[in-house]
Amino acid sequence: MKTIHLIQFGLGGVGRALVQRVLAARDDFEWRYGLRLAYVALCDSRGAAIAPDGFSHAQLQAMMAAKEAGVSLDATEWGYKRGELEDIVDIAGREDAIVIDVTATEETVPALQLALDRGYGAALANKKPLAGPMEIFRGLTSTGRLRYEATVGAGVPVIATLNEAIIPSHDSVARIEGCFSGTLGFLTTGLEEGKAFSGLVTEARALGYTEPDPRDDLGGMDVARKALILARTMGWPLELDQIPVEPLFPPEMAEGSVADFMAALPRLDDVYRKKVDAALAAGKTLRYVATLAGGEASVGLREVARESALGQLRGSDNLVAFHTAVYDATPLVLQGRGAGVHGTAAGVLADIVALAR
Amino acid sequence: MKTIHLIQFGLGGVGRALVQRVLAARDDFEWRYGLRLAYVALCDSRGAAIAPDGFSHAQLQAMMAAKEAGVSLDATEWGYKRGELEDIVDIAGREDAIVIDVTATEETVPALQLALDRGYGAALANKKPLAGPMEIFRGLTSTGRLRYEATVGAGVPVIATLNEAIIPSHDSVARIEGCFSGTLGFLTTGLEEGKAFSGLVTEARALGYTEPDPRDDLGGMDVARKALILARTMGWPLELDQIPVEPLFPPEMAEGSVADFMAALPRLDDVYRKKVDAALAAGKTLRYVATLAGGEASVGLREVARESALGQLRGSDNLVAFHTAVYDATPLVLQGRGAGVHGTAAGVLADIVALAR
Repeated sequence: MKTIHLIQFGLGGVGRALVQRVLAARDDFEWRYGLRLAYVALCDSRGAAIAPDGFSHAQLQAMMAAKEAGVSLDATEWGYKRGELEDIVDIAGREDAIVIDVTATEETVPALQLALDRGYGAALANKKPLAGPMEIFRGLTSTGRLRYEATVGAGVPVIATLNEAIIPSHDSVARIEGCFSGTLGFLTTGLEEGKAFSGLVTEARALGYTEPDPRDDLGGMDVARKALILARTMGWPLELDQIPVEPLFPPEMAEGSVADFMAALPRLDDVYRKKVDAALAAGKTLRYVATLAGGEASVGLREVARESALGQLRGSDNLVAFHTAVYDATPLVLQGRGAGVHGTAAGVLADIVALAR
Repeated sequence: MKTIHLIQFGLGGVGRALVQRVLAARDDFEWRYGLRLAYVALCDSRGAAIAPDGFSHAQLQAMMAAKEAGVSLDATEWGYKRGELEDIVDIAGREDAIVIDVTATEETVPALQLALDRGYGAALANKKPLAGPMEIFRGLTSTGRLRYEATVGAGVPVIATLNEAIIPSHDSVARIEGCFSGTLGFLTTGLEEGKAFSGLVTEARALGYTEPDPRDDLGGMDVARKALILARTMGWPLELDQIPVEPLFPPEMAEGSVADFMAALPRLDDVYRKKVDAALAAGKTLRYVATLAGGEASVGLREVARESALGQLRGSDNLVAFHTAVYDATPLVLQGRGAGVHGTAAGVLADIVALAR
């Protein structure tokens, strides 16, 4: 039996789902992999809790209950006010440690780098450290001990397919096209059905499909970060500002409050109705697509053939199509729920096991 | 630089494509993985060639040219008449060896078992060793040093998705549905378009999509073996004869020559036309589906919803849909070319790299 010591940054929805998944997997992983996963540190934005011998099942459950109730770790009986994340790695780190980053901040970079320098593994759902300067991406990934499946398509094995199927089979990628936003998938499917843009955004926001400020989704930057991570995984030395991104609203609507933005939405209805009609008239449909080809990436609303994999996609699933030398007539396609706490936690856990074995 | 010694059984189309792919990958793998792949033994059905220090690029190219010209290894200057494959493993085997099985016979089992007992790896495109008695599957796979991605869906990472994404994320599989025969995909797509069954089989045979005796494809046993391998990968202790298989011809047509069979085909046209019409009338379509659920597997012609992943599939691509606890509303779907020498060789090479690293 091998024990792996887990240090987790982030106890939001994904972080809590991951803790629960690790607890649920305990017996299965012991007999299947001879593997024990023991949490030795947990951090949220304000507090931390450290147990060198590992937290018990009951302690972890109690912590998750406290977090569900909105209590930060620093205000619980197990936690304290945390300082820098590097200090947590320094104090809690030990042989066979894996640092898990399920936050949404680039502030974890120094702690991740320290962990990798110490020989630990790292598993990320957080895109920010990998979507900053290329030098940081290189520094973090050069050890081969950092995995980041959940950064693109949540649990859908997009990164694994690239890193463990396409690249090691000496296949060559001609083009990758993907729909990496469930929210924008919901919108483009609705547009195709003739619904109004403003109504769809309002509905998506009410359903919790968007961030509180829907411009965070409609701006396309989240998709651009995923495209950047895919490009860099193939060895393309791109920076985020080299990826043209088409937001789904004009620059003047980027200013002002959310209420202003929502109120101004109906003026976009005609714009998108015309775009959809033009696409449908040409036998195509609109999708919000990340395209990678020839060392370049771009992100935006594209007309795609209705019978293509992207054109057949409906609703909020993610989809990626790899056009390669081997998959030339038709692409290699992966499709599935690309967001949500369970899919994301599942992707991180698969990475933890891969690192641990 | 780590050197991996390759012993390959099989020099048919896939075997030759694999040798070429290994040669083409040489520089890439050296800088990318610090890995040298050196062939130390090659075997075909009659002959073998062994070079303890590895064959040169030129020697391998010359051997492939001879094989392309229809010459067996035993009749070339590098080869000799081979005895048992175990002897090849015994003579050529050494530290960091991987045995590659791209034959289509169960006769490789003792040699594979010997290789694994010696601590070598094994990479299979050959389904037969894994589709025999469950005890043999267990014996071969229990070491964790045998990989078999290419046995299901060629290079499409079906097995990796199960073994390295779904199972280690502690997800639970409710149902797997898949189309694992390009030939039968071609047929069901043609039936949906209103073509006659007999004409489609004749066309598929003329295009080389079927075996010389098309009953080898239409019988469904190849699909059943893939279903069995998937089931066993999930830990289900099934035997091949426990999988109900629906052949696409009646028992009386199993006898007789290929010519007899081809001549009798038109009498099936009405049968399939009626089945297709009934399916379409119900908003469904026909696919030849492997279904795994509740510890059981079956293989046959099924009515599937037209808007489902299987219903949207056209042509000869393979498709697998994993319905799991995480992928509950919509399945995790993989689709791509599931046959052909390049896809199959690509799948084997990815396995070789995974074993080597």
